[in-house]
Amino acid sequence: MTTETWSTWLKTPVIFGVLGLLIAIFFYFRVLKQEKGNETMERIARYIREGAMAFLWRQYKTLAVYGVVVFALLAWKMSLLAGFCFLLGAFLSLLAGFIGMKAATFANVRTTQAAFRNKAADALVTALDGGAVMGLTVAALGLIGLGVLYLFYRESTQLSEVLHSFAVGASSIALFARIGGGIYTKAADVGSDIAGKVIENIPEDDPRNPGVIADNVGDNVGDVAGMGADIYESMVAAIVAAMAIAITSTQLPTFVEGDLETNKWIGVGLPLILSGLGLVVSIVCIFIARLMKNMNPAKVLRGALIMPPVILAAVSYAVMASLGITQSVTLVLTVGALGGAIIGLITDYYTSSTPVSKIAQSATTGAGTNVIYGLAIGMESTAVPMLVVAGVAYLADHYLGLYGVALSAVGMLGGTAVVMTVDAYGPISDNAGGISEMSGLGPEVRKITDELDSVGNTTAAIGKGFAIGSAILTVLALFSAFNMEVNHVRSLNGLPDLQLVLNEPKILIGILLGSILPFLVGSTTMLAVGRAAGAIVEEIRRQFREIPGLMELKADPDPKKIVDIATTAALKEMIVPGLIAVVAPVLVGFTLGPAVLAGMLAGSLAVGATLSLFMANAGGAWDNAKKFIEKGGLPGHKKGSDTHKAAVVGDMVGDPFKDTSGPGIAILIKVMSVVSLLVAPLIAML
Amino acid sequence: MTTETWSTWLKTPVIFGVLGLLIAIFFYFRVLKQEKGNETMERIARYIREGAMAFLWRQYKTLAVYGVVVFALLAWKMSLLAGFCFLLGAFLSLLAGFIGMKAATFANVRTTQAAFRNKAADALVTALDGGAVMGLTVAALGLIGLGVLYLFYRESTQLSEVLHSFAVGASSIALFARIGGGIYTKAADVGSDIAGKVIENIPEDDPRNPGVIADNVGDNVGDVAGMGADIYESMVAAIVAAMAIAITSTQLPTFVEGDLETNKWIGVGLPLILSGLGLVVSIVCIFIARLMKNMNPAKVLRGALIMPPVILAAVSYAVMASLGITQSVTLVLTVGALGGAIIGLITDYYTSSTPVSKIAQSATTGAGTNVIYGLAIGMESTAVPMLVVAGVAYLADHYLGLYGVALSAVGMLGGTAVVMTVDAYGPISDNAGGISEMSGLGPEVRKITDELDSVGNTTAAIGKGFAIGSAILTVLALFSAFNMEVNHVRSLNGLPDLQLVLNEPKILIGILLGSILPFLVGSTTMLAVGRAAGAIVEEIRRQFREIPGLMELKADPDPKKIVDIATTAALKEMIVPGLIAVVAPVLVGFTLGPAVLAGMLAGSLAVGATLSLFMANAGGAWDNAKKFIEKGGLPGHKKGSDTHKAAVVGDMVGDPFKDTSGPGIAILIKVMSVVSLLVAPLIAML
Repeated sequence: MTTETWSTWLKTPVIFGVLGLLIAIFFYFRVLKQEKGNETMERIARYIREGAMAFLWRQYKTLAVYGVVVFALLAWKMSLLAGFCFLLGAFLSLLAGFIGMKAATFANVRTTQAAFRNKAADALVTALDGGAVMGLTVAALGLIGLGVLYLFYRESTQLSEVLHSFAVGASSIALFARIGGGIYTKAADVGSDIAGKVIENIPEDDPRNPGVIADNVGDNVGDVAGMGADIYESMVAAIVAAMAIAITSTQLPTFVEGDLETNKWIGVGLPLILSGLGLVVSIVCIFIARLMKNMNPAKVLRGALIMPPVILAAVSYAVMASLGITQSVTLVLTVGALGGAIIGLITDYYTSSTPVSKIAQSATTGAGTNVIYGLAIGMESTAVPMLVVAGVAYLADHYLGLYGVALSAVGMLGGTAVVMTVDAYGPISDNAGGISEMSGLGPEVRKITDELDSVGNTTAAIGKGFAIGSAILTVLALFSAFNMEVNHVRSLNGLPDLQLVLNEPKILIGILLGSILPFLVGSTTMLAVGRAAGAIVEEIRRQFREIPGLMELKADPDPKKIVDIATTAALKEMIVPGLIAVVAPVLVGFTLGPAVLAGMLAGSLAVGATLSLFMANAGGAWDNAKKFIEKGGLPGHKKGSDTHKAAVVGDMVGDPFKDTSGPGIAILIKVMSVVSLLVAPLIAML
Repeated sequence: MTTETWSTWLKTPVIFGVLGLLIAIFFYFRVLKQEKGNETMERIARYIREGAMAFLWRQYKTLAVYGVVVFALLAWKMSLLAGFCFLLGAFLSLLAGFIGMKAATFANVRTTQAAFRNKAADALVTALDGGAVMGLTVAALGLIGLGVLYLFYRESTQLSEVLHSFAVGASSIALFARIGGGIYTKAADVGSDIAGKVIENIPEDDPRNPGVIADNVGDNVGDVAGMGADIYESMVAAIVAAMAIAITSTQLPTFVEGDLETNKWIGVGLPLILSGLGLVVSIVCIFIARLMKNMNPAKVLRGALIMPPVILAAVSYAVMASLGITQSVTLVLTVGALGGAIIGLITDYYTSSTPVSKIAQSATTGAGTNVIYGLAIGMESTAVPMLVVAGVAYLADHYLGLYGVALSAVGMLGGTAVVMTVDAYGPISDNAGGISEMSGLGPEVRKITDELDSVGNTTAAIGKGFAIGSAILTVLALFSAFNMEVNHVRSLNGLPDLQLVLNEPKILIGILLGSILPFLVGSTTMLAVGRAAGAIVEEIRRQFREIPGLMELKADPDPKKIVDIATTAALKEMIVPGLIAVVAPVLVGFTLGPAVLAGMLAGSLAVGATLSLFMANAGGAWDNAKKFIEKGGLPGHKKGSDTHKAAVVGDMVGDPFKDTSGPGIAILIKVMSVVSLLVAPLIAML
């Protein structure tokens, strides 16, 4: 392989990124072109769209303050360049969220309309196209951002700084978008559930309930914008971790015959190039899924999730062969990709199969046993995903050392665009169902959207398991990158390596400190949902009390007020857990030094990984256990029975578990690692 | 200080142990001498006593199989001596449990009788004396066992082996007694609650409910025998960890002027001597508490818990001064003892103060919000205890290095006899209330026992926090001891030290593996309680269906059948979680080597410490929130209201949290560390 060949290949991530963006734009306008339904539908859809956009704009304002502070700190302590790269990483995340959410809130009502015209296949494609805008934009912008920065700064000594601050920008947005969005969506969900079902006794999605619009906004805010920022961050962090290890490592694997310098070049560029290939493979998979539109939606979406690892393996094999790079790269990439798929399937098992029917069964003896059973199943569900991650890390390390661990994370996130497409498909079809119900389109339409939605629930669970699994692997890689960066800087300053010996008191104390943080984020986010939901319940009660004729369908509710309350509460409540994640590593790093910080990262990894899997899976399982009963899974225990009421309690506990705290904790450990990597040079000498 | 002086001092632990045992025997006969009440009371008490003893005997049989297997393995792989020391460690734990439970099941009815004769102070002293038998026996037998072994083998090369296998014996019994007892007590509690309150609508402790006796047996089995084995194990493990570090360390602190050899002698003997002093101090405190019998019971018991650290500090200061040993020892000992007291007080705060009234408040919007709030409070409650442990470890390390960390654990457990006395007092007074209710002694008697019981609940929470806090600190010490033992054996075999570098893949993979285990033990124990409770509910239903006249008080229930079901279920269900704890470190150590095992211990420490605090405190808080409502803490929400029913759901979830899984997970991490320490020499070369 010549230097020119490699230089050409280094441009592919940007090229593929631009290609992805163009296809996203194509899908965006294709969605817009579809019929948007009658006036009622359009009005409801506009409420949702405006609510979602209002949340985004107000979140931008809150984040602007944070952005300015961090920018100033970076410009002061590191360099102006670092500050700008931070802003770029953040901006691209926000841009992806903005575009994706626009598309999703256009696609929802158009999916309803397709279902109304009894075109199930068109409904599926519309929802899928809407999701693909988000999926492709997320992956494309991440690649373009990192790809361009690398092309510009690859010879610069500031390369590490550039990459790390870009990643911190991405992480920061992910953190606040995920936590804020998670609080919003569950506060609206729990709040309108309590108010609508328990207090006023009106069915779900009833147009009289002013909280329903906020609930639908929440799906977009949490599962489209929040999830998008999360996955964007994971992809960026995995790539940056691998690049960082290649930059600082003194024992890189031998990719090609040649000196360390040549292998370094390859090691640094490879994660980008492989992610670029992943995007191309994802695009192909999205188009294949669209072609299968007349098949069972469950098969289409599962197929879309399982295809990318297989195709990516073949493509990587061919490319590595043509470049003369060791096929260990393909092996590690594939192990990571398959690991992600396995974790997804295990999540699927725990949130849909035997465990769910057992949880439903446990509701027959009351809410207490239902909660106990769900918690126990959630705890059990942590084991296999963790074993899989450990196995992937073991194999990756065996073939390519610590660099391999990072590369396996890149592999796991190779199908980012597809995973995100399928994920964003979920809230779109969920919204479609809600719009159909609120517009009174009747049970036939609802049946089509319900089928789309139920598949969406499964794929959402798979996506969530996948997101947490890749987060854990990414954190392992970032952790290694952090330690290497510290020692790299120390050696540049003529200091000996910092030995992070596990039984040193500093490390042990760090582990104890780190183990607290996931529980604190879990606690603060759960309480935040509770408080925000309480405020929403109050307002719904007020509207029913003070708006004459609302109960008799003679007057309209004021959904904007609820949307406003949810937005205000979510933006306020996201601050404390968000700051814990950002400030803790900085504070510990600067006061107690890199060894305690390393211990803290290890402790929060151990606790955060298992706790987030536990919470996400328990929540998913309770949710489906309730649905299992509603669908008649337990003969003699219908909707509205004591058993069903007991299952509703589990579902309510599970709501913040699966959509706020669980994902929030996964983000926490990523953000802590990325922030630590960024500040590593500043604390390396302490 | 001369060698003779030191040799004399080395005999004090055994001497003080024998003294403690004699006083325990005195208390035992003093309890027996009290009036035992009328025939009904005596019959009920006999049921409880027989049920508790039946559980013990059948547990002994199950454990005999385990004991024989481990004995054979030790005799085969290590030495016959190791096998016998293991049996001794186990036997002394069982003996303490046997004596303590006998005393507790004699004291319960005699406490009722004292209350019946309206002698509140006598009732307090009887319950306290009954508890003191357990408290003193536990501490005394631990000291005698270790003290005698040390006197015999102090010059032997097998000293480490002797101590470690004794500790494994102690740990094994603690593991099974705690988990088996925890499953028993909560299965009986939850089972008779569901059956008695929900299904048959008869009040708590109603003599018609055949599960009530089993519930009372469970208090003894879980909170007397289980807790006793747990605390015995912690004390033994802390002493052994400090001794092990002194034996293998190459950088001991300078206790006295002199060579390393002299300081080693002192370092090895000191933990025993200090624990002996702790026992004497505890005896004094128990007698002071008895003298204050006419005061408010809450003040008496809190006083008993806070006195030992203060007095122990003074005693240690005097003794160290007379021996010319550095007062850093006193400092570290005191820091540990105070840390334990602080953790106890924090547990008290989270399970009785503002958080509890907030959880009660959250029940007004339903069971879902009550569960969410309790989980969030439990999560939050992990932070300060972990910070305290980290702070204690930091200070201890600062003054005396890793040895200091172990010594601070010895200090925290210095008041073992008092803590255990107060802990065993709880179930005795709880039983006393139950006996009074079942014998129909009327509200006056019940008022006295209720007051004793309510204090018992608070002290139980403090004791539980203290047990978990000392477990975490002990595990830190054991972990260091394990690593030192590995390197000690390696250096004896001419191998270089094993560097446990935190960012080595082996360590990271170990951390991932270790983080799973606490969740698995949590899951299996919660499900075990659920299953066993289900079986009990079935049987209670059967009795009400098939025994004619039971509902009308014309026929007696068959409580023995329930006791039998609970016993069988508990003994069967304790096997899987118990084996996880013992087998996991052995399996990983022998197949993946000491580095992965070290990582696994670190991962399970991080997760286990926080998870057990979370579960224990959330459970305690829910329990008291329910009681808060029952006592009229929320005006307008009485017992039986929807709010109260919602709080009952939280309490039910909290039952296995606080008395089965939480303590079980704390034991898990201790057992794993002790077992690892024992097998360290066998796997050091892998």
